[in-house]
Amino acid sequence: MLKRLEVKTSSRVQLIEITSQVRTFLRSENMTSGVLILYIPHSTCGITINENADPAVKEDILSFLDTMVPRDHEYRHVEGNADAHIKASLLGSSVTVFVESSALVLGTWQGIFLAEFDGPRKRSVLLKLLPD
Amino acid sequence: MLKRLEVKTSSRVQLIEITSQVRTFLRSENMTSGVLILYIPHSTCGITINENADPAVKEDILSFLDTMVPRDHEYRHVEGNADAHIKASLLGSSVTVFVESSALVLGTWQGIFLAEFDGPRKRSVLLKLLPD
Amino acid sequence: MLKRLEVKTSSRVQLIEITSQVRTFLRSENMTSGVLILYIPHSTCGITINENADPAVKEDILSFLDTMVPRDHEYRHVEGNADAHIKASLLGSSVTVFVESSALVLGTWQGIFLAEFDGPRKRSVLLKLLPD
Repeated sequence: MLKRLEVKTSSRVQLIEITSQVRTFLRSENMTSGVLILYIPHSTCGITINENADPAVKEDILSFLDTMVPRDHEYRHVEGNADAHIKASLLGSSVTVFVESSALVLGTWQGIFLAEFDGPRKRSVLLKLLPD
Repeated sequence: MLKRLEVKTSSRVQLIEITSQVRTFLRSENMTSGVLILYIPHSTCGITINENADPAVKEDILSFLDTMVPRDHEYRHVEGNADAHIKASLLGSSVTVFVESSALVLGTWQGIFLAEFDGPRKRSVLLKLLPD
Repeated sequence: MLKRLEVKTSSRVQLIEITSQVRTFLRSENMTSGVLILYIPHSTCGITINENADPAVKEDILSFLDTMVPRDHEYRHVEGNADAHIKASLLGSSVTVFVESSALVLGTWQGIFLAEFDGPRKRSVLLKLLPD
Protein backbone atom coordinates (compact mmCIF):
# COMPACT_ATOMS: atom_id res chain seq x y z
CA MET A 1 0.00 0.00 0.00
CA LEU A 2 3.06 2.29 0.00
CA LYS A 3 3.37 4.31 -3.21
CA ARG A 4 6.07 6.56 -4.56
CA LEU A 5 6.06 9.71 -6.69
CA GLU A 6 9.23 10.66 -8.50
CA VAL A 7 10.04 14.37 -8.68
CA LYS A 8 12.92 15.85 -10.66
CA THR A 9 14.12 19.19 -9.38
CA SER A 10 16.00 21.63 -11.60
CA SER A 11 17.72 24.11 -9.30
CA ARG A 12 19.34 24.25 -5.88
CA VAL A 13 16.27 25.57 -4.09
CA GLN A 14 12.82 25.08 -5.52
CA LEU A 15 9.22 24.62 -4.46
CA ILE A 16 7.64 22.15 -6.88
CA GLU A 17 3.90 21.78 -6.74
CA ILE A 18 2.93 18.12 -6.70
CA THR A 19 -0.82 18.51 -6.09
CA SER A 20 -1.83 17.25 -9.54
CA GLN A 21 0.50 14.22 -9.27
CA VAL A 22 -1.06 13.48 -5.88
CA ARG A 23 -4.57 13.78 -7.37
CA THR A 24 -3.61 11.39 -10.19
CA PHE A 25 -2.36 8.91 -7.59
CA LEU A 26 -5.58 9.28 -5.61
CA ARG A 27 -7.74 8.60 -8.68
CA SER A 28 -5.88 5.33 -9.21
CA GLU A 29 -6.81 4.20 -5.70
CA ASN A 30 -10.26 3.23 -4.52
CA MET A 31 -10.55 5.21 -1.33
CA THR A 32 -13.64 7.31 -0.72
CA SER A 33 -12.73 8.78 2.62
CA GLY A 34 -9.68 8.77 4.88
CA VAL A 35 -6.26 10.28 5.38
CA LEU A 36 -3.35 10.65 2.97
CA ILE A 37 0.16 10.94 4.40
CA LEU A 38 3.05 12.16 2.23
CA TYR A 39 6.60 11.48 3.41
CA ILE A 40 9.99 12.72 2.16
CA PRO A 41 12.77 10.09 2.51
CA HIS A 42 15.51 12.73 2.16
CA SER A 43 17.28 14.98 4.64
CA THR A 44 17.96 18.05 2.46
CA CYS A 45 14.44 18.33 1.13
CA GLY A 46 11.11 19.01 2.83
CA ILE A 47 7.39 19.20 2.11
CA THR A 48 4.88 21.96 2.77
CA ILE A 49 1.36 23.10 1.99
CA ASN A 50 0.95 26.72 0.95
CA GLU A 51 -0.63 29.02 -1.65
CA ASN A 52 -0.61 27.71 -5.21
CA ALA A 53 -2.22 30.74 -6.90
CA ASP A 54 0.44 33.47 -7.04
CA PRO A 55 3.87 31.95 -7.90
CA ALA A 56 5.48 34.89 -6.06
CA VAL A 57 4.52 33.20 -2.78
CA LYS A 58 6.79 30.24 -3.36
CA GLU A 59 9.62 32.54 -4.45
CA ASP A 60 9.16 34.57 -1.25
CA ILE A 61 9.23 31.42 0.89
CA LEU A 62 12.42 30.19 -0.77
CA SER A 63 14.25 33.50 -0.79
CA PHE A 64 13.27 34.26 2.79
CA LEU A 65 14.50 30.84 3.93
CA ASP A 66 17.78 31.63 2.12
CA THR A 67 18.03 34.92 4.03
CA MET A 68 17.12 33.28 7.34
CA VAL A 69 19.40 30.25 6.90
CA PRO A 70 22.23 31.38 4.59
CA ARG A 71 24.21 28.84 2.59
CA ASP A 72 27.46 30.54 3.58
CA HIS A 73 27.90 30.42 7.33
CA GLU A 74 30.38 28.76 9.65
CA TYR A 75 28.80 25.32 9.60
CA ARG A 76 30.64 22.22 10.78
CA HIS A 77 29.15 19.89 8.15
CA VAL A 78 31.64 20.21 5.27
CA GLU A 79 29.48 19.11 2.34
CA GLY A 80 28.22 22.67 1.73
CA ASN A 81 24.57 21.79 2.33
CA ALA A 82 24.16 22.33 6.08
CA ASP A 83 21.63 25.06 5.29
CA ALA A 84 19.56 22.49 3.36
CA HIS A 85 19.46 20.15 6.38
CA ILE A 86 18.35 23.00 8.66
CA LYS A 87 15.61 24.12 6.26
CA ALA A 88 14.42 20.51 5.91
CA SER A 89 13.89 20.30 9.68
CA LEU A 90 12.13 23.69 9.75
CA LEU A 91 9.54 22.62 7.13
CA GLY A 92 9.31 18.98 8.19
CA SER A 93 9.41 15.57 6.53
CA SER A 94 5.71 14.86 6.08
CA VAL A 95 2.28 16.38 5.58
CA THR A 96 -1.15 14.90 6.24
CA VAL A 97 -4.20 15.69 4.11
CA PHE A 98 -7.78 14.48 4.38
CA VAL A 99 -9.67 12.70 1.61
CA GLU A 100 -13.45 13.01 1.25
CA SER A 101 -15.66 11.85 -1.65
CA SER A 102 -12.49 10.44 -3.23
CA ALA A 103 -10.94 13.94 -3.42
CA LEU A 104 -8.19 15.80 -1.55
CA VAL A 105 -9.57 18.22 1.03
CA LEU A 106 -7.44 21.32 0.49
CA GLY A 107 -8.26 24.96 1.17
CA THR A 108 -9.15 27.06 -1.88
CA TRP A 109 -5.62 28.39 -2.36
CA GLN A 110 -3.67 25.44 -1.00
CA GLY A 111 -1.29 23.26 -2.97
CA ILE A 112 1.22 20.61 -1.86
CA PHE A 113 4.87 21.42 -2.56
CA LEU A 114 8.06 19.42 -2.44
CA ALA A 115 10.71 21.80 -1.06
CA GLU A 116 14.09 21.20 -2.68
CA PHE A 117 16.98 22.73 -0.74
CA ASP A 118 19.97 20.96 -2.31
CA GLY A 119 19.11 20.26 -5.94
CA PRO A 120 18.98 19.65 -8.73
CA ARG A 121 18.25 16.02 -7.88
CA LYS A 122 15.81 13.20 -8.36
CA ARG A 123 13.56 13.06 -5.31
CA SER A 124 10.89 10.69 -4.05
CA VAL A 125 7.69 11.33 -2.16
CA LEU A 126 6.22 8.29 -0.40
CA LEU A 127 2.45 8.11 0.00
CA LYS A 128 0.13 6.04 2.10
CA LEU A 129 -3.64 6.10 2.41
CA LEU A 130 -5.43 5.27 5.66
CA PRO A 131 -9.12 4.63 5.00
CA ASP A 132 -11.71 5.69 7.58
CA MET B 1 -16.35 11.67 9.53
CA LEU B 2 -14.70 15.00 8.75
CA LYS B 3 -15.63 17.71 11.22
CA ARG B 4 -15.00 21.44 11.31
CA LEU B 5 -14.36 23.95 14.09
CA GLU B 6 -14.94 27.61 13.36
CA VAL B 7 -12.49 30.06 14.94
CA LYS B 8 -12.84 33.83 14.78
CA THR B 9 -9.57 35.69 15.14
CA SER B 10 -9.44 39.31 16.29
CA SER B 11 -6.03 40.67 15.33
CA ARG B 12 -3.42 40.29 12.60
CA VAL B 13 -1.29 37.80 14.51
CA GLN B 14 -2.75 35.70 17.29
CA LEU B 15 -2.38 32.33 18.94
CA ILE B 16 -5.87 31.15 19.88
CA GLU B 17 -6.11 28.15 22.12
CA ILE B 18 -8.63 25.66 20.77
CA THR B 19 -8.01 22.79 23.21
CA SER B 20 -11.38 23.09 24.92
CA GLN B 21 -13.22 23.24 21.58
CA VAL B 22 -11.33 20.12 20.53
CA ARG B 23 -12.27 18.40 23.81
CA THR B 24 -15.93 19.30 23.27
CA PHE B 25 -15.76 17.80 19.78
CA LEU B 26 -14.14 14.65 21.16
CA ARG B 27 -16.86 14.21 23.81
CA SER B 28 -19.48 14.28 21.03
CA GLU B 29 -17.76 11.37 19.28
CA ASN B 30 -17.65 7.81 20.50
CA MET B 31 -13.95 7.00 20.19
CA THR B 32 -12.15 5.44 23.11
CA SER B 33 -8.70 5.21 21.63
CA GLY B 34 -7.01 6.38 18.44
CA VAL B 35 -5.52 9.37 16.69
CA LEU B 36 -6.93 12.85 16.13
CA ILE B 37 -5.63 14.89 13.20
CA LEU B 38 -6.29 18.64 12.99
CA TYR B 39 -5.83 20.35 9.64
CA ILE B 40 -5.80 24.03 8.65
CA PRO B 41 -7.30 24.67 5.18
CA HIS B 42 -5.68 28.12 4.93
CA SER B 43 -2.29 29.31 3.71
CA THR B 44 -1.73 32.32 6.01
CA CYS B 45 -2.57 30.50 9.22
CA GLY B 46 -0.94 27.53 10.98
CA ILE B 47 -1.41 25.25 13.95
CA THR B 48 0.92 24.40 16.82
CA ILE B 49 1.05 22.72 20.20
CA ASN B 50 2.80 24.63 22.97
CA GLU B 51 2.48 25.82 26.57
CA ASN B 52 -1.00 26.91 27.63
CA ALA B 53 -0.16 27.99 31.20
CA ASP B 54 1.68 31.32 30.95
CA PRO B 55 0.08 33.53 28.25
CA ALA B 56 3.48 35.24 27.84
CA VAL B 57 4.67 32.14 25.95
CA LYS B 58 2.26 32.69 23.09
CA GLU B 59 3.12 36.38 22.96
CA ASP B 60 6.82 35.48 22.79
CA ILE B 61 6.19 33.01 19.96
CA LEU B 62 4.22 35.57 17.96
CA SER B 63 6.53 38.51 18.54
CA PHE B 64 9.61 36.43 17.84
CA LEU B 65 8.10 35.17 14.58
CA ASP B 66 7.41 38.83 13.69
CA THR B 67 11.07 39.67 14.35
CA MET B 68 12.30 36.63 12.42
CA VAL B 69 9.94 37.07 9.46
CA PRO B 70 9.12 40.80 9.31
CA ARG B 71 5.96 42.01 7.59
CA ASP B 72 7.93 44.75 5.84
CA HIS B 73 10.55 43.22 3.59
CA GLU B 74 11.14 43.15 -0.15
CA TYR B 75 8.70 40.36 -0.92
CA ARG B 76 7.44 39.67 -4.44
CA HIS B 77 3.89 38.72 -3.37
CA VAL B 78 2.10 42.07 -3.45
CA GLU B 79 -0.82 41.37 -1.11
CA GLY B 80 1.15 42.44 1.95
CA ASN B 81 0.91 39.05 3.64
CA ALA B 82 3.99 37.19 2.34
CA ASP B 83 5.24 37.00 5.93
CA ALA B 84 2.03 35.18 6.90
CA HIS B 85 2.59 32.55 4.19
CA ILE B 86 6.18 32.00 5.35
CA LYS B 87 5.16 31.66 9.00
CA ALA B 88 2.39 29.23 8.03
CA SER B 89 4.96 26.94 6.39
CA LEU B 90 7.30 27.22 9.39
CA LEU B 91 4.61 26.06 11.86
CA GLY B 92 2.87 23.64 9.52
CA SER B 93 -0.69 22.89 8.40
CA SER B 94 -1.58 20.03 10.73
CA VAL B 95 -0.97 18.47 14.13
CA THR B 96 -1.59 14.94 15.32
CA VAL B 97 -2.65 14.08 18.87
CA PHE B 98 -3.38 10.73 20.50
CA VAL B 99 -6.65 9.82 22.19
CA GLU B 100 -6.77 7.36 25.09
CA SER B 101 -9.72 6.57 27.40
CA SER B 102 -11.77 8.99 25.26
CA ALA B 103 -9.46 11.89 26.23
CA LEU B 104 -6.75 13.90 24.45
CA VAL B 105 -3.25 12.80 25.42
CA LEU B 106 -1.46 16.11 25.94
CA GLY B 107 1.53 16.90 28.12
CA THR B 108 0.77 18.71 31.39
CA TRP B 109 1.42 22.17 29.94
CA GLN B 110 0.41 21.56 26.36
CA GLY B 111 -2.46 23.20 24.54
CA ILE B 112 -3.44 23.27 20.86
CA PHE B 113 -3.30 26.69 19.19
CA LEU B 114 -4.54 28.03 15.90
CA ALA B 115 -1.84 30.45 14.71
CA GLU B 116 -3.34 33.42 12.91
CA PHE B 117 -0.82 35.36 10.82
CA ASP B 118 -3.11 37.48 8.62
CA GLY B 119 -6.23 38.24 10.63
CA PRO B 120 -8.66 39.19 11.78
CA ARG B 121 -10.57 36.51 9.88
CA LYS B 122 -12.95 33.59 10.22
CA ARG B 123 -10.88 30.42 10.14
CA SER B 124 -11.67 26.72 10.05
CA VAL B 125 -9.94 23.76 11.61
CA LEU B 126 -10.80 20.39 10.06
CA LEU B 127 -10.71 17.32 12.32
CA LYS B 128 -10.67 13.62 11.72
CA LEU B 129 -10.50 10.72 14.14
CA LEU B 130 -8.76 7.46 13.29
CA PRO B 131 -9.78 4.76 15.76
CA ASP B 132 -7.23 2.11 16.78
CA MET C 1 -1.77 0.58 22.19
CA LEU C 2 -0.01 3.77 23.30
CA LYS C 3 3.64 3.19 24.16
CA ARG C 4 6.29 5.41 25.72
CA LEU C 5 10.04 5.74 25.25
CA GLU C 6 12.04 7.40 27.99
CA VAL C 7 14.91 9.63 26.88
CA LYS C 8 17.40 11.26 29.24
CA THR C 9 19.01 14.38 27.87
CA SER C 10 22.34 15.64 29.18
CA SER C 11 22.67 19.26 28.09
CA ARG C 12 20.50 22.31 27.48
CA VAL C 13 20.19 21.78 23.74
CA GLN C 14 20.73 18.38 22.21
CA LEU C 15 19.59 16.25 19.29
CA ILE C 16 19.38 12.67 20.54
CA GLU C 17 18.92 9.98 17.95
CA ILE C 18 16.17 7.59 18.98
CA THR C 19 15.97 5.50 15.77
CA SER C 20 17.34 2.34 17.35
CA GLN C 21 14.99 2.66 20.35
CA VAL C 22 12.11 3.07 17.91
CA ARG C 23 13.27 -0.02 15.96
CA THR C 24 13.42 -2.02 19.20
CA PHE C 25 9.86 -0.95 20.01
CA LEU C 26 8.74 -1.91 16.52
CA ARG C 27 10.26 -5.39 16.79
CA SER C 28 8.25 -5.96 19.98
CA GLU C 29 5.01 -5.24 18.09
CA ASN C 30 3.43 -7.44 15.48
CA MET C 31 2.74 -4.97 12.70
CA THR C 32 3.81 -5.78 9.17
CA SER C 33 2.66 -2.62 7.47
CA GLY C 34 1.20 0.70 8.55
CA VAL C 35 2.04 4.05 10.05
CA LEU C 36 4.01 4.95 13.17
CA ILE C 37 3.33 8.28 14.87
CA LEU C 38 5.75 9.68 17.46
CA TYR C 39 4.52 12.44 19.76
CA ILE C 40 6.35 14.70 22.22
CA PRO C 41 4.25 15.57 25.32
CA HIS C 42 6.49 18.53 26.23
CA SER C 43 6.51 22.17 25.18
CA THR C 44 10.26 22.92 25.30
CA CYS C 45 11.30 19.89 23.29
CA GLY C 46 10.59 18.83 19.69
CA ILE C 47 11.12 15.97 17.28
CA THR C 48 12.66 15.91 13.81
CA ILE C 49 13.95 13.60 11.11
CA ASN C 50 17.32 14.47 9.59
CA GLU C 51 20.72 13.07 8.65
CA ASN C 52 22.17 10.53 11.08
CA ALA C 53 25.51 9.94 9.30
CA ASP C 54 27.67 13.01 9.99
CA PRO C 55 27.21 14.19 13.62
CA ALA C 56 28.17 17.69 12.45
CA VAL C 57 24.69 18.01 10.92
CA LYS C 58 22.95 17.85 14.27
CA GLU C 59 25.44 20.32 15.77
CA ASP C 60 24.75 22.70 12.86
CA ILE C 61 21.00 22.40 13.35
CA LEU C 62 21.29 23.13 17.09
CA SER C 63 23.78 25.95 16.81
CA PHE C 64 21.90 27.57 13.97
CA LEU C 65 18.65 27.41 15.94
CA ASP C 66 20.52 29.08 18.83
CA THR C 67 21.65 31.86 16.48
CA MET C 68 18.20 32.24 14.97
CA VAL C 69 16.31 32.12 18.29
CA PRO C 70 18.75 33.37 20.94
CA ARG C 71 18.27 32.45 24.57
CA ASP C 72 18.92 36.03 25.60
CA HIS C 73 16.33 38.31 24.14
CA GLU C 74 13.60 40.50 25.57
CA TYR C 75 11.05 37.74 26.08
CA ARG C 76 7.99 38.18 28.30
CA HIS C 77 8.02 34.61 29.64
CA VAL C 78 10.24 34.91 32.73
CA GLU C 79 11.38 31.31 33.14
CA GLY C 80 14.38 31.80 30.87
CA ASN C 81 13.24 29.20 28.35
CA ALA C 82 11.10 31.21 25.91
CA ASP C 83 13.61 30.32 23.17
CA ALA C 84 12.97 26.62 23.87
CA HIS C 85 9.20 27.08 23.42
CA ILE C 86 9.74 28.91 20.12
CA LYS C 87 12.13 26.24 18.79
CA ALA C 88 9.69 23.51 19.84
CA SER C 89 6.97 25.09 17.68
CA LEU C 90 9.39 25.53 14.75
CA LEU C 91 10.30 21.81 14.71
CA GLY C 92 6.91 20.49 15.74
CA SER C 93 5.51 18.05 18.27
CA SER C 94 5.20 14.90 16.16
CA VAL C 95 6.59 12.98 13.20
CA THR C 96 4.98 10.27 11.12
CA VAL C 97 6.93 7.38 9.59
CA PHE C 98 5.78 4.47 7.45
CA VAL C 99 6.29 0.81 8.32
CA GLU C 100 6.70 -1.84 5.61
CA SER C 101 7.74 -5.49 6.01
CA SER C 102 7.83 -4.83 9.78
CA ALA C 103 10.59 -2.20 9.31
CA LEU C 104 10.75 1.60 9.47
CA VAL C 105 10.76 3.19 6.03
CA LEU C 106 13.47 5.86 6.35
CA GLY C 107 15.67 7.38 3.68
CA THR C 108 19.27 6.12 3.55
CA TRP C 109 20.63 8.94 5.70
CA GLN C 110 17.58 9.62 7.85
CA GLY C 111 17.35 9.15 11.59
CA ILE C 112 14.72 10.22 14.13
CA PHE C 113 15.86 12.75 16.72
CA LEU C 114 14.38 14.06 19.92
CA ALA C 115 15.25 17.77 20.02
CA GLU C 116 15.97 18.94 23.55
CA PHE C 117 15.85 22.73 23.93
CA ASP C 118 15.66 23.11 27.72
CA GLY C 119 17.59 20.21 29.24
CA PRO C 120 19.01 18.32 30.83
CA ARG C 121 15.74 16.53 31.62
CA LYS C 122 13.93 13.24 31.45
CA ARG C 123 11.73 13.29 28.37
CA SER C 124 9.08 10.97 26.96
CA VAL C 125 8.21 10.10 23.40
CA LEU C 126 4.75 8.60 22.91
CA LEU C 127 4.27 6.11 20.07
CA LYS C 128 1.26 4.68 18.33
CA LEU C 129 1.02 2.26 15.42
CA LEU C 130 -1.82 2.39 12.92
CA PRO C 131 -1.92 -0.82 10.87
CA ASP C 132 -2.96 -0.70 7.20
